[in-house]
Amino acid sequence: MTSGSICAEEQAEIVLLSGGGGGARLAAGLHAATTGERFNVVTNTGDDFEHLGLTICPDTDSVLYALSQQIDPVRGWGREGETWGVFDELTKLGGPDWFQLGDKDLALHLIRAALLADGVGLCEVTAVLARQLGVTSAVSIMPATEDRLRTCVSTSEGEMAFQEYFVKHRCAPQLMAVRYEGIAEAKPSPRLVDLLVGAGSRAVDVVLGPSNPFLSLAPILDLPGMADLLRERARHVIAVSPIVEGQALKGPAAKIMSELGLSVSAAGWMQWMADRYPDLIDLWVWDERDHALADTTRMTHPNIVVTDTVMSDPERARQFAEWILRASRDGD
Amino acid sequence: MTSGSICAEEQAEIVLLSGGGGGARLAAGLHAATTGERFNVVTNTGDDFEHLGLTICPDTDSVLYALSQQIDPVRGWGREGETWGVFDELTKLGGPDWFQLGDKDLALHLIRAALLADGVGLCEVTAVLARQLGVTSAVSIMPATEDRLRTCVSTSEGEMAFQEYFVKHRCAPQLMAVRYEGIAEAKPSPRLVDLLVGAGSRAVDVVLGPSNPFLSLAPILDLPGMADLLRERARHVIAVSPIVEGQALKGPAAKIMSELGLSVSAAGWMQWMADRYPDLIDLWVWDERDHALADTTRMTHPNIVVTDTVMSDPERARQFAEWILRASRDGD
Repeated sequence: MTSGSICAEEQAEIVLLSGGGGGARLAAGLHAATTGERFNVVTNTGDDFEHLGLTICPDTDSVLYALSQQIDPVRGWGREGETWGVFDELTKLGGPDWFQLGDKDLALHLIRAALLADGVGLCEVTAVLARQLGVTSAVSIMPATEDRLRTCVSTSEGEMAFQEYFVKHRCAPQLMAVRYEGIAEAKPSPRLVDLLVGAGSRAVDVVLGPSNPFLSLAPILDLPGMADLLRERARHVIAVSPIVEGQALKGPAAKIMSELGLSVSAAGWMQWMADRYPDLIDLWVWDERDHALADTTRMTHPNIVVTDTVMSDPERARQFAEWILRASRDGD
Repeated sequence: MTSGSICAEEQAEIVLLSGGGGGARLAAGLHAATTGERFNVVTNTGDDFEHLGLTICPDTDSVLYALSQQIDPVRGWGREGETWGVFDELTKLGGPDWFQLGDKDLALHLIRAALLADGVGLCEVTAVLARQLGVTSAVSIMPATEDRLRTCVSTSEGEMAFQEYFVKHRCAPQLMAVRYEGIAEAKPSPRLVDLLVGAGSRAVDVVLGPSNPFLSLAPILDLPGMADLLRERARHVIAVSPIVEGQALKGPAAKIMSELGLSVSAAGWMQWMADRYPDLIDLWVWDERDHALADTTRMTHPNIVVTDTVMSDPERARQFAEWILRASRDGD
């Protein structure tokens, strides 16, 4: 954070760092809560992969679909009212069928493929797709990097690409390590740097969504220079725990924490984040269901607040986003 | 041809050179007529193009669909019983919609894209797709070249790629010249060379399908070394006129002949082919509707025969294919 003092302040420009699950829900909540004010979503690209000759960007797309209110509310990914004409035929033809691709979803991937083939950068591609999907121009969605970055995992069944682990193997193998292939050579995307560096006197508050720390946030925060850029330019950095009552609401975060030998709790999450990104996070947001643990942990880490973080429907996502906006404005 | 004498001979292995329209129909007819005997289809790749990040091979795919009996009989291209989930969404999203891509068709393009991305050559890709579509293993479908070759046209509205001219502009601009980009560096595909050179003592008869000479046959026959290879290795070369009563049954062949200053007739077609590929073609097959013109032309070109070449349904395609097989066996 840029200042040690925390007091009632004006609304800063919000920058949400997001994976595809809870982060996308929070993005949709912020969209409802900001009612036309500018905000920004920085999406994880570590999950991106090449499949059937296409570049698939699952986390970016989840945010695009969430913000255009076209995400499938039941599955929590992909498009609502999806059809499966291509996928059914692909399966019939014996093509690779471990990654489900709906027709509407494919239309987006094909437009992205055409733009990438024309040499358009991933941020501009994402901006075009956002416009085409009808996302309000008040929101900027930007992949964290335009350079190639691919999350790989070492597991009990060997090294594998993230989507293989996540989709093909349904996170079943025991995870031993996570590696972000290409991250040493990757740069934060120019639009993100512009947003932070070019903010000038504008205040920027950064929210780390309730996303998987290993698979969604680290591939953003570990980009060379990224954590320092946030330390230097962000007024407040607020992190939302993805662990509630020792469970991840969605995805393998709890399983991975356990396999990596961490305490599976909001406290374990906070400790890992604080150790890995010292002096970055000003405010730790835990779910109110963990208030007892928060009370004891607060003795050593005073900047923990609790609220209802469970975004089980769009209205609760909006309410939580409003809480986040207030916390960002008030500094606590 | 390898021998000047033409007499009753055994059945040779048939190699059909084909575009996507009449050639694909003849391929399906040969499939019905050969009942399990080996034959080969060499497909034009000059129409191939890159679209939405995918490599589309329209002529090869028409042959694949024709031989797996899945070609749409009304449109004459693409898959029967096609659905349009992706294309409808692509159009809604403002993506490029000038080239229609059905869902089933796209499944094939995506499998091809995945294989090409893995470094598999176009002939092997085509063999895999043929197997997956259920084409009998007795038929080998091979793109004429695995190297990049792209037909471009000079028109009254400027230079353009073939598919732009053919699909986007529906062949409306006046055509002034055809150019086969990359052909000087392209090689006939290794499988085709193997088939011809490796035939050893086996006889090979080559059939030039009733395909557009400028757009479908020239991009095959102009490949470096190709015409000589055929002159040297083929027992007979039989060419089927795509012009019947001064009209092309399908496509822009007649319009292009007229624009290039040729006589729009089977005689005009034959003259162009004979001038461009001297000493290649042994037998010229005209439609019986042109018998009067054939009678007069035969005074200078004795090797013209007439029959019913109009393959208006699968049964007539089979009958014409049987006629071709007899002509190939008998040498006239």
